[in-house]
Amino acid sequence: MKAIGIADTTFARYDMAASAIDELSSLGTGFVISRYTVPGIKDLPVACKILFERDHCDLVIALGMPGPKPVDKTSAHIASSGLMQVQLEKSRHIIEVFVHEDEAQDEDTLARLMDRRAREHARNAFNLLFYQQRLTRDAGQGLRQGFPDAGPLQGDHGSTGGRH
Amino acid sequence: MKAIGIADTTFARYDMAASAIDELSSLGTGFVISRYTVPGIKDLPVACKILFERDHCDLVIALGMPGPKPVDKTSAHIASSGLMQVQLEKSRHIIEVFVHEDEAQDEDTLARLMDRRAREHARNAFNLLFYQQRLTRDAGQGLRQGFPDAGPLQGDHGSTGGRH
Amino acid sequence: MKAIGIADTTFARYDMAASAIDELSSLGTGFVISRYTVPGIKDLPVACKILFERDHCDLVIALGMPGPKPVDKTSAHIASSGLMQVQLEKSRHIIEVFVHEDEAQDEDTLARLMDRRAREHARNAFNLLFYQQRLTRDAGQGLRQGFPDAGPLQGDHGSTGGRH
Amino acid sequence: MKAIGIADTTFARYDMAASAIDELSSLGTGFVISRYTVPGIKDLPVACKILFERDHCDLVIALGMPGPKPVDKTSAHIASSGLMQVQLEKSRHIIEVFVHEDEAQDEDTLARLMDRRAREHARNAFNLLFYQQRLTRDAGQGLRQGFPDAGPLQGDHGSTGGRH
Amino acid sequence: MKAIGIADTTFARYDMAASAIDELSSLGTGFVISRYTVPGIKDLPVACKILFERDHCDLVIALGMPGPKPVDKTSAHIASSGLMQVQLEKSRHIIEVFVHEDEAQDEDTLARLMDRRAREHARNAFNLLFYQQRLTRDAGQGLRQGFPDAGPLQGDHGSTGGRH
Repeated sequence: MKAIGIADTTFARYDMAASAIDELSSLGTGFVISRYTVPGIKDLPVACKILFERDHCDLVIALGMPGPKPVDKTSAHIASSGLMQVQLEKSRHIIEVFVHEDEAQDEDTLARLMDRRAREHARNAFNLLFYQQRLTRDAGQGLRQGFPDAGPLQGDHGSTGGRH
Repeated sequence: MKAIGIADTTFARYDMAASAIDELSSLGTGFVISRYTVPGIKDLPVACKILFERDHCDLVIALGMPGPKPVDKTSAHIASSGLMQVQLEKSRHIIEVFVHEDEAQDEDTLARLMDRRAREHARNAFNLLFYQQRLTRDAGQGLRQGFPDAGPLQGDHGSTGGRH
Repeated sequence: MKAIGIADTTFARYDMAASAIDELSSLGTGFVISRYTVPGIKDLPVACKILFERDHCDLVIALGMPGPKPVDKTSAHIASSGLMQVQLEKSRHIIEVFVHEDEAQDEDTLARLMDRRAREHARNAFNLLFYQQRLTRDAGQGLRQGFPDAGPLQGDHGSTGGRH
Repeated sequence: MKAIGIADTTFARYDMAASAIDELSSLGTGFVISRYTVPGIKDLPVACKILFERDHCDLVIALGMPGPKPVDKTSAHIASSGLMQVQLEKSRHIIEVFVHEDEAQDEDTLARLMDRRAREHARNAFNLLFYQQRLTRDAGQGLRQGFPDAGPLQGDHGSTGGRH
Repeated sequence: MKAIGIADTTFARYDMAASAIDELSSLGTGFVISRYTVPGIKDLPVACKILFERDHCDLVIALGMPGPKPVDKTSAHIASSGLMQVQLEKSRHIIEVFVHEDEAQDEDTLARLMDRRAREHARNAFNLLFYQQRLTRDAGQGLRQGFPDAGPLQGDHGSTGGRH
């Protein structure tokens, strides 16, 4: 039985954790979920660390919505650096699911983006834990989360090494 | 009995620690407070570490007021990175309460913002220590500290995963 | 027998790992290859760490394609910092092969750049493991990967220390 | 008997260490001073670490003068991050006294600023070691080093928590 | 007998290591030199670490030439941060000798700058190892490497603490 941690915030304007949990439940079994909510994204790294240490999680999904101001961008940088440190200390993945508030023009679109990105990264998390080979199958395929996939590059580049 | 640390600076132009302590006292009992004042925000991380190690704090509230110049923004970045490092080493929360001097137009508004943010983050700290489930109840609700809450996103996004 | 790790992403729009593996195979023998694919570049550092720890790799090649937006540049910075941390913890090289999506004007040129840079860095990795002295022979020669070499500086600078 | 370290550079254009040492001597007794001079600010962190480890310093004052160019600002950032790391490893304060060369318009003003900031931070260092309560007395008072104090915020903000 | 490490790159367009080695040889005896060449500046930190661990170096000189593009500036930042980490782990100096490609207008001037900076920093390294007191003698004297010294500040600032 695997344990998946979900860390999220009260600052975000959409309950991405609910989306991620709903998606995970639809993907399969063989795991339990632990959730830890903090005020803002800079509180996420230590929450992830506690999820690894206290709840013995095998992987954590960290969900956040950085605001649009320069100070918010700095906070996102510091939060991401902290998530990196925790991953490297534990040798386990934290899937960072950040949606910047200025990625969408209106609230409805932003909510849909947050829901979709949380779900698609939940699938990535699930595959990292249970079906690692699916990711290698999709290597270099230009996959995106929350937006349409970019897809592999087009053109007559004729590499012998690439699969194109 | 829990121990809450309060780290603050002589650089700040408002005694946010007094606000935080006053608010904590109004919220309940079951904790003692240790205070450590340093010159500026870059001195806060080691102060927090000393509060964890010397005074066995379970959580620290770090209060600071970064100035408006680019060099102050850099100092804030370095201070935040240091606070992150201490949290991750101790697996304990530091609630960073920074009010940038340029967040308000006049001194009176700035003082009210500093007072209010310190109080609202004191409540977050209290909940993290004693009522973790209150934070999960408010996940994705767009809460803010010092300013009015942004609230959850509006619109007809109809996610099955979100609570909207 | 040496072990070379290959970490790559599903975000990239070209299968650089295939190029690197093809090139390594053409250079010689005496090594095995382990591959680990993750969603995006911020997932690469922990993948590299797992390649060192689980698969006992002697060196890892980390392949990624940062997007063109500011948020992508920040991700690249955080990913690179993480790759640095892993190298320093393990005292082993990670050859970072990043091609920024905005380094080329069209998809065909970008694909050729990604293929060529992956191959030329695969050669660097091979030399670091097996023929370290080849790198010292080329010190200060203005070598580039994916673009034509810049070459050593021209001019009548007449240093007694330089080889020019 | 306490030990105070002084780390400084040959890059700076004013002997701030002499100012700091002169000021410390005027403040009291009960300490010895160790000095370590390096070429530039990026060499300061390891100098501080050596002062802690070799000379058993209880606190270090790190003095530097970052130049005005973007590359100098980056160096200052890296130096500050290193000073942070050393403090957190040792759980001891490093008082960073940096005067940016572009903080003053002419050489005379710059020299006075460097002298004054070094002296005022020497007093902070002395208080951190011997009179911690003096800092808490001045919490939120808008103190500055090298420039006139900003002072506490003015206005009718009427907080019950602040002292204003 | 001391050991001095020299780490350099194939990316640089001038053989700064040759300049540094030539200069060191002219300064005295009592040391051996180990050299380690890597592809680019982001590979330097782990090279320095290997020079400390495998070759037991007492100090390392890290030579690099960051390119002129924003991505090169980011690489320089990450490389410098890595060099900082290695120094702090080993409590030993790494003298970073970076010449940015855009510091000079033409190739001849750039080559002379690279030669001169490498030589002047080789002298700093030599003094740090053997004649530490020479650096303290020059504290606050505005020394530069590769360019003319800025010198101490001029003016009637009349500090009692400064030596001016």
